[in-house]
Amino acid sequence: MNNFNFFSPTYFAFGKERENEAGKLVKRFGGTRVLIHYGGGSVIKSGLLDRVKASLSVENITFTELGGVVPNPRSGLVYKGIERCKNEKIDFILAVGGGSVIDSAKAIAMGALYEGDFWDFYQGRQIEKALPVATILTISAAGSEGSMGSVITHENGMLKRAANNEVLRPVFSIMNPELTASLPDYQIACGITDMMAHVMERYFTNTKNVEISDRLSEGILLAIINEAPKALTIRDYDALANIMWAGMVAHNDTSGIGRQDDWSSHQMEHELSALYDVAHGAGLAVMFPAWMKYVMHHDVMRFAQFAVRVWGCEMDFQNPEKTALQGIQRYEQFMTSIGMPIRFSQLGAKAEDIPTLVKTMGLGKNTLGSFVKLTEEDVRKIYELAV
Amino acid sequence: MNNFNFFSPTYFAFGKERENEAGKLVKRFGGTRVLIHYGGGSVIKSGLLDRVKASLSVENITFTELGGVVPNPRSGLVYKGIERCKNEKIDFILAVGGGSVIDSAKAIAMGALYEGDFWDFYQGRQIEKALPVATILTISAAGSEGSMGSVITHENGMLKRAANNEVLRPVFSIMNPELTASLPDYQIACGITDMMAHVMERYFTNTKNVEISDRLSEGILLAIINEAPKALTIRDYDALANIMWAGMVAHNDTSGIGRQDDWSSHQMEHELSALYDVAHGAGLAVMFPAWMKYVMHHDVMRFAQFAVRVWGCEMDFQNPEKTALQGIQRYEQFMTSIGMPIRFSQLGAKAEDIPTLVKTMGLGKNTLGSFVKLTEEDVRKIYELAV
Repeated sequence: MNNFNFFSPTYFAFGKERENEAGKLVKRFGGTRVLIHYGGGSVIKSGLLDRVKASLSVENITFTELGGVVPNPRSGLVYKGIERCKNEKIDFILAVGGGSVIDSAKAIAMGALYEGDFWDFYQGRQIEKALPVATILTISAAGSEGSMGSVITHENGMLKRAANNEVLRPVFSIMNPELTASLPDYQIACGITDMMAHVMERYFTNTKNVEISDRLSEGILLAIINEAPKALTIRDYDALANIMWAGMVAHNDTSGIGRQDDWSSHQMEHELSALYDVAHGAGLAVMFPAWMKYVMHHDVMRFAQFAVRVWGCEMDFQNPEKTALQGIQRYEQFMTSIGMPIRFSQLGAKAEDIPTLVKTMGLGKNTLGSFVKLTEEDVRKIYELAV
Repeated sequence: MNNFNFFSPTYFAFGKERENEAGKLVKRFGGTRVLIHYGGGSVIKSGLLDRVKASLSVENITFTELGGVVPNPRSGLVYKGIERCKNEKIDFILAVGGGSVIDSAKAIAMGALYEGDFWDFYQGRQIEKALPVATILTISAAGSEGSMGSVITHENGMLKRAANNEVLRPVFSIMNPELTASLPDYQIACGITDMMAHVMERYFTNTKNVEISDRLSEGILLAIINEAPKALTIRDYDALANIMWAGMVAHNDTSGIGRQDDWSSHQMEHELSALYDVAHGAGLAVMFPAWMKYVMHHDVMRFAQFAVRVWGCEMDFQNPEKTALQGIQRYEQFMTSIGMPIRFSQLGAKAEDIPTLVKTMGLGKNTLGSFVKLTEEDVRKIYELAV
């Protein structure tokens, strides 16, 4: 096991009607002038935004609003938010929405305390401080409600890049599973795919003997696999609740401690969603099996363990490779069962764009990922496997 | 799933040689005048205390020392620590040791900011504040390095009682698995028993459909069961590391969210260790199987799930009770395999003391636990099953 730090100081208020505690929690965590950040009209139509504002008003907390975040959130609105924070002396950002809204809020939070261009932080500049961000989660997916990451797409070139730092962990997150019951099947399924991917990016590792992380990872995946059908078909409250918490632990590093992680499937997906503006989850459902097939020979027994422990495959002791491949097939079948694409054509992606995807990634002589260090040529082949 | 709050803000610095960062971390978390709290001579003999002091000195942090904590830590030293904190204007407590030292430090931390008797907090008084406590863990067991609990034995009557509050979560915990390599087998095994019990107290619940907590609980137990033999026999670093992290997640509530927990086995054990001063883990190894046998008919399928998922028993669909009982037997066999007692006689406890144990608990007309609400008569019968 590698040395590691684990710091997940977010206060989670989970369950029915918890959004009504927003005002009390903002007060507890020191907010006095709040920017409420959100996406499209759903939080308005559902009455959620009104309930949140009422809860802030009860505590005499000043607030202003900035809506309009889109999936794969863009730099343009971030710049607008930063300006607003500086002009209106905002000291706290409350993100009401899903991963895109939270990621956008985190970008604004960094930019508000920085004189330069916030994009610097997405190009590797060390993050030192940010305004406190809190969240009211409306989609179980990205895990940004507990994570230290933010992913933004810059409109100049449609580059999708990530920033990570412990100061980006939300100070509190309100998680009410009921808020996710009205989502379309496709969005719930995309979320499920995303959280499974967050575990798998940490699971396929070269670090040996981190049994506790393996078992926690497998536990999260098993819970998701078990609960997904009930969440999708009948919007069962408990199933939605299990999925919601699974999405948080999938990405706050509960499943990743003490070992090297990979993230090449995420990076390859980022190029897809930047080019076609497809849902992140859908892109992952396409890229992950292609990546797995390409790299499985690097550690067949790891993939066999995944097949046996997560998918319940029987171990073929004469031919572990067969078991490993079965696990990947079971993953693909599961994706199909929840309505996800698993190939380029289902996603609307085109084989002829592969050179563009590879080029935009800008890998050059560098490599991608850690489980197998992928060259540009490897990346091209993986995209081709996904066709 | 029940509504819940989850707040585990401790900063964990895990791995080899991390104790040398103690000074930097105390500084980061605002300590300027530190009470170093520890137990017997082992931290002195091993040189750990000297390394910690050197690390504080490098950062120009003032410190004073208070050693002498014993297993099942006592009120006497707590009073001494509180007086010292008040007299010397201590603003930070650094516990160097295991659960007993950390629990004692937490008690001192509460008492130092309170005008009354610290014991009030162990008799139900609401906790409002405490000095920041940090830990350098030397035994994987109690989980106090990440938990919000503290258990103290009052010398007046040898009452063993618990206090719980989120202000008792350590601000940081340094966890170096190497520090646990020199422990005797018996202590390592007691620690393993304790952490398994922390998961099991949360696992046997009446709350339905908390699959994510079930799977995380099962994952922690599976990791412990797999790693324990390697930790015990060859003191394998990775095994010790897996066990150490498992002990933390077993008790910071990772495995318990969204459901009712029980704690009656712990309470029954507390009476044992208060009367005989036996190791807490050893007492649990005796009380847990007795409790399980007594309550299993309340929810046979829950015990069957435990047997199948944790212990790999085959489900007997014609006779789930048989499977349930097998799980309990497998638990007992595992305890025996790591050198733990499973009956009163192995512990040095006596059947004729049962009336005393029941009486000291002072249940009266109240009940104990939640999975099954135990009356005094039930408690007596469970002690008898443990004989």
